[in-house]
Amino acid sequence: MIYLDNAATSFPKPSQVYEEVLNCMENYAANPGRSSHDMSVKAALKIMETREEICQFFNIPSPFNLIFTSNATEGLNVGIKGALEKGDHVISTVIEHNSVLRPLHSLSEKGIDVTLVGVDKAGYVNINDIQETIKKNTKMIIINHASNVLGSIQDIDIIGKIAKENDILFMVDASQSAGSVPIDVESSHIDLLAFPGHKGLFGPQGTGGLFIRDGVKLKNFKEGGTGSNSHFMVQPDFVPDQFESGTLNTPGIAGLCEGIKFIKKVGTANIQKCEEELTSHLLEELKKLSYVKVYGSHSISHRTAVISFNIDEIDASIVGEKLNDMGIAVRTGYHCAPLIHDVIGTEHAGTVRVSPGYFNTSEDIEKLVEALMKIYKVR
Amino acid sequence: MIYLDNAATSFPKPSQVYEEVLNCMENYAANPGRSSHDMSVKAALKIMETREEICQFFNIPSPFNLIFTSNATEGLNVGIKGALEKGDHVISTVIEHNSVLRPLHSLSEKGIDVTLVGVDKAGYVNINDIQETIKKNTKMIIINHASNVLGSIQDIDIIGKIAKENDILFMVDASQSAGSVPIDVESSHIDLLAFPGHKGLFGPQGTGGLFIRDGVKLKNFKEGGTGSNSHFMVQPDFVPDQFESGTLNTPGIAGLCEGIKFIKKVGTANIQKCEEELTSHLLEELKKLSYVKVYGSHSISHRTAVISFNIDEIDASIVGEKLNDMGIAVRTGYHCAPLIHDVIGTEHAGTVRVSPGYFNTSEDIEKLVEALMKIYKVR
Repeated sequence: MIYLDNAATSFPKPSQVYEEVLNCMENYAANPGRSSHDMSVKAALKIMETREEICQFFNIPSPFNLIFTSNATEGLNVGIKGALEKGDHVISTVIEHNSVLRPLHSLSEKGIDVTLVGVDKAGYVNINDIQETIKKNTKMIIINHASNVLGSIQDIDIIGKIAKENDILFMVDASQSAGSVPIDVESSHIDLLAFPGHKGLFGPQGTGGLFIRDGVKLKNFKEGGTGSNSHFMVQPDFVPDQFESGTLNTPGIAGLCEGIKFIKKVGTANIQKCEEELTSHLLEELKKLSYVKVYGSHSISHRTAVISFNIDEIDASIVGEKLNDMGIAVRTGYHCAPLIHDVIGTEHAGTVRVSPGYFNTSEDIEKLVEALMKIYKVR
Repeated sequence: MIYLDNAATSFPKPSQVYEEVLNCMENYAANPGRSSHDMSVKAALKIMETREEICQFFNIPSPFNLIFTSNATEGLNVGIKGALEKGDHVISTVIEHNSVLRPLHSLSEKGIDVTLVGVDKAGYVNINDIQETIKKNTKMIIINHASNVLGSIQDIDIIGKIAKENDILFMVDASQSAGSVPIDVESSHIDLLAFPGHKGLFGPQGTGGLFIRDGVKLKNFKEGGTGSNSHFMVQPDFVPDQFESGTLNTPGIAGLCEGIKFIKKVGTANIQKCEEELTSHLLEELKKLSYVKVYGSHSISHRTAVISFNIDEIDASIVGEKLNDMGIAVRTGYHCAPLIHDVIGTEHAGTVRVSPGYFNTSEDIEKLVEALMKIYKVR
């Protein structure tokens, strides 16, 4: 099967990831940070190593600014629900994923004022729109770094600068960018960065994280045993323990560690270049097919390897099914991002989404294009 | 290393668990329930298979009564915080783990009335104490099925009956019992059952679940993409989607599936018998050592394979260190259960906790006893 659904979860992973998950399970998957025997210490050290790798990767000041979560969604919930209180105003956009929109919708019913600024048809926010929306009580700006529908990358440097100047928390959803696009929490003035482990960072499913800048106070989310302050019923108020109750996913985190090391070895720039080449190749080929409508930017600049399109007269889901029959895996539908479809005019059937990854080849793209031509021909 | 810390996380797992995690990662770890291509469908089917295995295991009526969580703590948070509202009364006990005590403590600060009933020195609740504590506004009884400090198993059949008669939600924390003690949510009238995947069920870390009985309405916890109702910003209100936002831990859940199948093959009764024999053996041997004080019941009836003790004149943590030096892994300290130590008189240093599992042998127990004798001798 030609796998072109990397925006959902990357596949395959580098072999080191599989090997380390197995090594961990077989040799040191004790409970990290709870006991003091060698296996437990080894588990805790591997988790600390991963914390340090991630911190270096995103230029996070200290491993004590990072919590592990089960996916990006958990990190987004911890940050959004933890920071916002009744009477606060929050700015986000219509291109967000439901992992941001649903928590915001739920908060809007509890007296939090939510503004969703628009994006253009290519999926980009107008910075002025954000600036004009800022109010006295604006507590947070939260933005999707790269869209999981259109691949559009927002300019987080400028938005971060605006947030900082206005003393507003800046939260970034890096679900589609972490690992594929360089991210520096310092230079982009990011206060909260939520990311999945199982997409661009090549970790296994069940992993993710949230960077929390020093001084950002968040309400508790999951509470429970942390292996620290064990004789107190009060949840610890320091990071990471405040948000890491219960046993962590040690094998998953160990695998994530190797995924990040792989990226560092290859270089984010090389991964980005490879994905840009595949994207460019596909965009070029699709341009030749008059019956294919590509959504979003037709350029490869400021975009990730996510390409949404439709074929004339054929429902996206049918295209997906036929591609699957021909051994090609893509995703179709709304991609859990409801509002962007009103902007691009796909509110009735969604799109076919192709998301190549580092392990795809230009041959995969050619086979996809051939398959699309065949699907249209025999419609 | 002789691993005797199974109450923290079971080790090793049956080899099928490792094999399936690897098989999943290498062959079908696409995003379950999101795309419709074969790999995604295979991932979704494996998750459904696991759901069905778990349901059969605990006699849960339908796979749509079960959500996957990253550990038992998450399930406890979803149930406790989801069910209780200002003005409600909740009954629990002093033998609970911090995964229950910390959420309850936090709710007590938000206008929820919490009563913690006592336990005797052996770690058992007096049923009358629960009955006498019930008020008109009692919404929930939540109880630790088996203690992670003393191994005491509470009589959930009787407590469940009382809860049902009084129209009170009955929640059970099965962190130490799931897999080692038979649990039937129907005959015990359990409304909410939280359990870890990585302890008695032999799954990998990063897995767990919560049974939610039909009709039990819980507030949302994590909100986000669910692959369902994707074009709506409102979180789905049906189980499991309401509580399964974000990508699930497919490889972990696949491993858990094999863990449960292993238990079914061996038989819970045989696992329980094996663990009882190891416990009995250790209790007998410790009885012979005048300088060892064992806490909790000295009988094997109504208890799991968790034995807490101290050695005269030697701090628990020192005993743990020395055992580790001799190649034996145990846990020492408070075990994230703060209040029980006041009952058993270990509030200043905690206990040494030994928790054998199905893969331990009587030789392991003998080696532990020899090591304890040596530690006392050369003190």
